[in-house]
Amino acid sequence: VNVTLLDKRNFHLFQPLLYQVATGGLSPANISSPLRAVLKRQANARVLLADVVNVNVPGKKVLLRDGSGLPYDYLIVATGARHHYFGHPEWEPAAPGLKTIEDATEIRRRIFLAFETAERLPDAPSQQKHMTFVIVGAGPTGVELAGAIGELAQQTLRHNFRNINPAQARILLLEGTDRVLPPYPADLSAKAERALQKRGVEVWTRAKVTKIELHAVTVERPNGVQVVPAATVLWAAGVMASPLGKILGEATGAEVDRAGRVAMQPDLTLPGHPEVFVIGDLALAKDAAGKPLPGIAPTAIQQGKYVAETISKRLQGKTVKPFHYHDRGIMATIGRNFAVAQVFGLQISGWLAWMAWLVVHIFNLIAFENRLLVLTQWWWNYLTRNRSARLITGVNDPENWPQRR
Amino acid sequence: VNVTLLDKRNFHLFQPLLYQVATGGLSPANISSPLRAVLKRQANARVLLADVVNVNVPGKKVLLRDGSGLPYDYLIVATGARHHYFGHPEWEPAAPGLKTIEDATEIRRRIFLAFETAERLPDAPSQQKHMTFVIVGAGPTGVELAGAIGELAQQTLRHNFRNINPAQARILLLEGTDRVLPPYPADLSAKAERALQKRGVEVWTRAKVTKIELHAVTVERPNGVQVVPAATVLWAAGVMASPLGKILGEATGAEVDRAGRVAMQPDLTLPGHPEVFVIGDLALAKDAAGKPLPGIAPTAIQQGKYVAETISKRLQGKTVKPFHYHDRGIMATIGRNFAVAQVFGLQISGWLAWMAWLVVHIFNLIAFENRLLVLTQWWWNYLTRNRSARLITGVNDPENWPQRR
Repeated sequence: VNVTLLDKRNFHLFQPLLYQVATGGLSPANISSPLRAVLKRQANARVLLADVVNVNVPGKKVLLRDGSGLPYDYLIVATGARHHYFGHPEWEPAAPGLKTIEDATEIRRRIFLAFETAERLPDAPSQQKHMTFVIVGAGPTGVELAGAIGELAQQTLRHNFRNINPAQARILLLEGTDRVLPPYPADLSAKAERALQKRGVEVWTRAKVTKIELHAVTVERPNGVQVVPAATVLWAAGVMASPLGKILGEATGAEVDRAGRVAMQPDLTLPGHPEVFVIGDLALAKDAAGKPLPGIAPTAIQQGKYVAETISKRLQGKTVKPFHYHDRGIMATIGRNFAVAQVFGLQISGWLAWMAWLVVHIFNLIAFENRLLVLTQWWWNYLTRNRSARLITGVNDPENWPQRR
Repeated sequence: VNVTLLDKRNFHLFQPLLYQVATGGLSPANISSPLRAVLKRQANARVLLADVVNVNVPGKKVLLRDGSGLPYDYLIVATGARHHYFGHPEWEPAAPGLKTIEDATEIRRRIFLAFETAERLPDAPSQQKHMTFVIVGAGPTGVELAGAIGELAQQTLRHNFRNINPAQARILLLEGTDRVLPPYPADLSAKAERALQKRGVEVWTRAKVTKIELHAVTVERPNGVQVVPAATVLWAAGVMASPLGKILGEATGAEVDRAGRVAMQPDLTLPGHPEVFVIGDLALAKDAAGKPLPGIAPTAIQQGKYVAETISKRLQGKTVKPFHYHDRGIMATIGRNFAVAQVFGLQISGWLAWMAWLVVHIFNLIAFENRLLVLTQWWWNYLTRNRSARLITGVNDPENWPQRR
């Protein structure tokens, strides 16, 4: 076979650690690997930096933004998801989400600029909104972000300011359902909530965000509506699959759900098109019981391996079994020494879960050099409680705030 | 004393290694240290993120962009220099210079995007301008950039592409005088030029750039005028001191040279204003023989220490000697295993000079963590010839090229 890898970016991004870039613990390159370096030794693979805008399914051609077309025998679409504002795209400038390196450095800029701004203001009332951090959505990303900001405020930034006390920052985690980490067992959700509170995070469940403006979030709760003034609002609530999902659905009649994901055949192909595979966050694949598979890295990795084997078997004229997801578990970390995990049916929490989280995440980084650099920084940050990658970049004018690049 | 450190950025940047960020060898945070982390333990020092727009010298007040004023007893101005296009500011979009983290990531983006673009083009004639890299100015920054791009093309990117051979990239280093590294002894300049040629760099001396447009540089040489088509043009030629130099000159009658630097008294103060010090690239300080001191880090570091001691002595009523520059030498590296240096009057080149360069640069990084991370990456990159921080960031649309953030 000849393989062509098309990507808008020239690197693979390990998204599970993106929140550590957003909170100044790691550098972007530590969780990224240049695609060409990864595929350097694979002579039958070529990489092209390209933006796919459409697929001509009957003509078996991928259409690029520059107008050119690329013919294929087999197509694997794995373009993932972006964050999504439930019909309120106007919220994005006020509440960035976390999916790309640029998102992470923008969030990092906002978090650290908020403390800098508060330091320059004369009194607590004027500082208050800059010392308030609202995170919308208490899934794994929201919980990890809130925990990391809590540790920043309580530990990393200690003794760093003269006019404010960073430990007095208000960190508010909003969740629409009745508990944090909704896909986790209720017991682990409760433990995670206690760990968050210990790190200074205020958790509001059954909280529905009805409006986000620059420096203000409107929240509807069972006991009433409240407007929270906050300079830093982070979005960790909804995701929407890449537009290619809808395009493929329309071309083949495949069902597309509200989140833009394409419903797949048991072998991860499109109905009537055994040559087109959809995997990862773009695919609405289901397990044997009909439950959608979780939108996490292990799902995508297993699907990738399955598709590669399927194509290889088909070329050899062999039959292929349907895709079967091996549930190895889920885990989320809430800072230093604490994580919750459900692995192989076991529920663990605390230091042991945190060690497991560290090992799994180091192991899944693609490049050995990145493992070395991430381990060095984790070890150093653990000893010193410092986070040295807290750079405010992409702006030269701190007084004209906030401003996007 | 009470110290207030005002800076537009929230981090100290170790500029001598900025070219390694621009060529994908190091991450921005590896050569940066958050100012608050550096001064955490110094209780009499506070840090403010602020943009100084003017100084009221008679009123002893620093004026910030937000309109507020900050009174001082002593003022130390060390706002440095930016690159400068000799009266052609319109050249900047086509030929970025290298002074900030944003400059470095923009140059990195252009270098790696040029190879990506060439890979997608069908034949050598259309690829040519994307495979041509022009560096204007053969001072230390220009030489280091050219050497690093040469190594990228010859070594790092080997086996990375299928349609182009990166080793066939044309790297053109333009210098207006008759040799590279003009401030160095002629013998070292000649050695540096040979080392550059070995790394695939074509050196044009007595070459004057008369025009820079997007994708084309016009060069005047003794044998005629030539237009070089090149998608990547990097500016390493001129510097201009921060506008505060001119402001201080006008306020105090101090002489300001063509590069915007302020002529200082022997104790680095402004004439008639013993409370205002100017140091670093903004100062036109002279040695005993009347020769201007070089615009390099050791000058600035020695001046900083001198001013701190001077203020301390004055407060104790002691007399102060004029500033005396201790010339410890100059050094520049041209990639793996090669550098040139003049230290303590000795001229060295090759591997020994390179080792000296490594030690001096590691030693001068402020934070221990950064030393560890830079050493790890240098060691790894030395073994593998890889550079893993070669991310194209700040743009999501590779086909709409070039485009600034």
